[in-house]
Amino acid sequence: MKIAIDAMGGDYAPKEIVAGAVAAAKDNQDVEILLVGDESQIKAQLTETQPSNLRIIHASEIVESEDEPVRAVRRKKDSSMVVAGRLVKEKEADAMLSAGNTGALMATGLLVVGRIPGIERPALAPLLPSLDGVGMLALDLGANMDATPEQLYQYAVMGSIYRERVQGMKAPRIGLLNIGTEDMKGNEATKAAYELLKQSKLNFVGNVESKNMLERPCDVLVCDGFSGNIMLKSYEGAASLIFKELKKSFTQSLLTKLAAAIMLPKLKGLKKTLDPNEFGGALLLGINGCVMKIHGSSDSRAVQAAVKQAKTAIKGSLIESITAEINKE
Amino acid sequence: MKIAIDAMGGDYAPKEIVAGAVAAAKDNQDVEILLVGDESQIKAQLTETQPSNLRIIHASEIVESEDEPVRAVRRKKDSSMVVAGRLVKEKEADAMLSAGNTGALMATGLLVVGRIPGIERPALAPLLPSLDGVGMLALDLGANMDATPEQLYQYAVMGSIYRERVQGMKAPRIGLLNIGTEDMKGNEATKAAYELLKQSKLNFVGNVESKNMLERPCDVLVCDGFSGNIMLKSYEGAASLIFKELKKSFTQSLLTKLAAAIMLPKLKGLKKTLDPNEFGGALLLGINGCVMKIHGSSDSRAVQAAVKQAKTAIKGSLIESITAEINKE
Repeated sequence: MKIAIDAMGGDYAPKEIVAGAVAAAKDNQDVEILLVGDESQIKAQLTETQPSNLRIIHASEIVESEDEPVRAVRRKKDSSMVVAGRLVKEKEADAMLSAGNTGALMATGLLVVGRIPGIERPALAPLLPSLDGVGMLALDLGANMDATPEQLYQYAVMGSIYRERVQGMKAPRIGLLNIGTEDMKGNEATKAAYELLKQSKLNFVGNVESKNMLERPCDVLVCDGFSGNIMLKSYEGAASLIFKELKKSFTQSLLTKLAAAIMLPKLKGLKKTLDPNEFGGALLLGINGCVMKIHGSSDSRAVQAAVKQAKTAIKGSLIESITAEINKE
Repeated sequence: MKIAIDAMGGDYAPKEIVAGAVAAAKDNQDVEILLVGDESQIKAQLTETQPSNLRIIHASEIVESEDEPVRAVRRKKDSSMVVAGRLVKEKEADAMLSAGNTGALMATGLLVVGRIPGIERPALAPLLPSLDGVGMLALDLGANMDATPEQLYQYAVMGSIYRERVQGMKAPRIGLLNIGTEDMKGNEATKAAYELLKQSKLNFVGNVESKNMLERPCDVLVCDGFSGNIMLKSYEGAASLIFKELKKSFTQSLLTKLAAAIMLPKLKGLKKTLDPNEFGGALLLGINGCVMKIHGSSDSRAVQAAVKQAKTAIKGSLIESITAEINKE
């Protein structure tokens, strides 16, 4: 099994990415890590002997975070991201992961690796935090802004397979992001998607409301990229603001500073529970190969965790299962 | 000036509504309050002499909260809500307000009072809380789930006029709810609406993200009813969950109980700042008359405040200004 890692993408690249790749190679002797990027820069970061199951693949260019995604992918053919994508396309690697430019990674998936035949649109599928620590898979969270009812239905199929094959969850509960739980709620797209999902063999539990997302009302949340993003950023905004205001309150007097000292560990725990970045990589589902986005601020531990996640996806025959299911119908 | 109040709608109707109407009548000697509902039930709630500027208008039926909106409005022609709507339609009242079934109130606006000529779709326009206490007008928050770019543009025009005429705000800043602040972000509808708004004479400040809503990035937030609702309920959900978890943490030990005693007043203040229900009534903008929704759990104080708000809207010639502006173009 081979996993390609884009060594040059992310806020702490190449240092943390290289460190994570080395650690992952040591942890996973059954995996060959293909570290893609500028060879001399990567070598400069190798503080110890290069593990035998880690191979450097030189790529001379870098997709920058401010690059226009599609243009960057088309022009920078020797960038670490595009080269990693090509390895997946040519079956030289079973998966690739990158902490770089999200839009460019989606373009790499679409233009370099390509879609699974039968899939209309790929979807970005991160695991969102939930209070119980299990997390909820949500898709699409940003690959496409608009989604037709049929595309929403395909998201549900892909999400359900991911939960089953990669996470071993039986009959994952599929929920449709909506403004109320009643049958006929929503806009034209969700109303039509509701009907498709109800008639399907999926374990569809109906509409779910954005107000109780942290209680994990479903295992797979289906939404278009626009409203999913609105929801996610609302939660992030509310949480960050409340914690900021609490901090302000805590430092107003000696007494409140005392209260802060008592409460701080608990607050930090809660904040961590609510942090979407704590939850590993997001697969671009619908692409004909494992393409995983990891957070821009990923450190070596995040890279290690993402390699494990990719490995499980490969072992679970995720892509093959999606391909079979979509083309069965 | 005459303001009709639906005495029978809301969780605490008729008691709190009647008490609020009486107080509003006393406070506003220049307003005649038309209290619409079951006469005997209203009279039973009149604990003091009926003010001379308060008139009871008997209505024999009630729209219940579980009634299907359009059907209820069509069939219950003698319900307090529909009768109040008819008073506005027939210019017997300058405004109406109700704490009853929101869907039915929107149907009353549309089917009984009617649209302003030239307005495609009316929009529900509540004031959302902001940290600075000023609030942000948001529309549409639930009258229509889907919105075309032209409808989003009309929302902006109506919201801008509301801020200017009713709240005396100069050149209110119009923002478009989106997933990023860059020009070309969003779905098909927001991209097209962005262009319409940019070319208009409105004080358009561009796309605004759902993550910093509480910092009031604009004075009028334009959105379709679906994504606006997703945003609002996400904020409500995040806030209520964080406060619930904090409360749990606070009661874990003697020390944390001490911390709670110190922090509780501050937490309550913050919770109140974030509560959308603290901010008065929401007008159904685009209806050819002032139709105001007040929260289902409104008490007498909320009714009093809503009467003041309606009075300002009438004095500011809100409907006339919207009509003139929409038909100028």
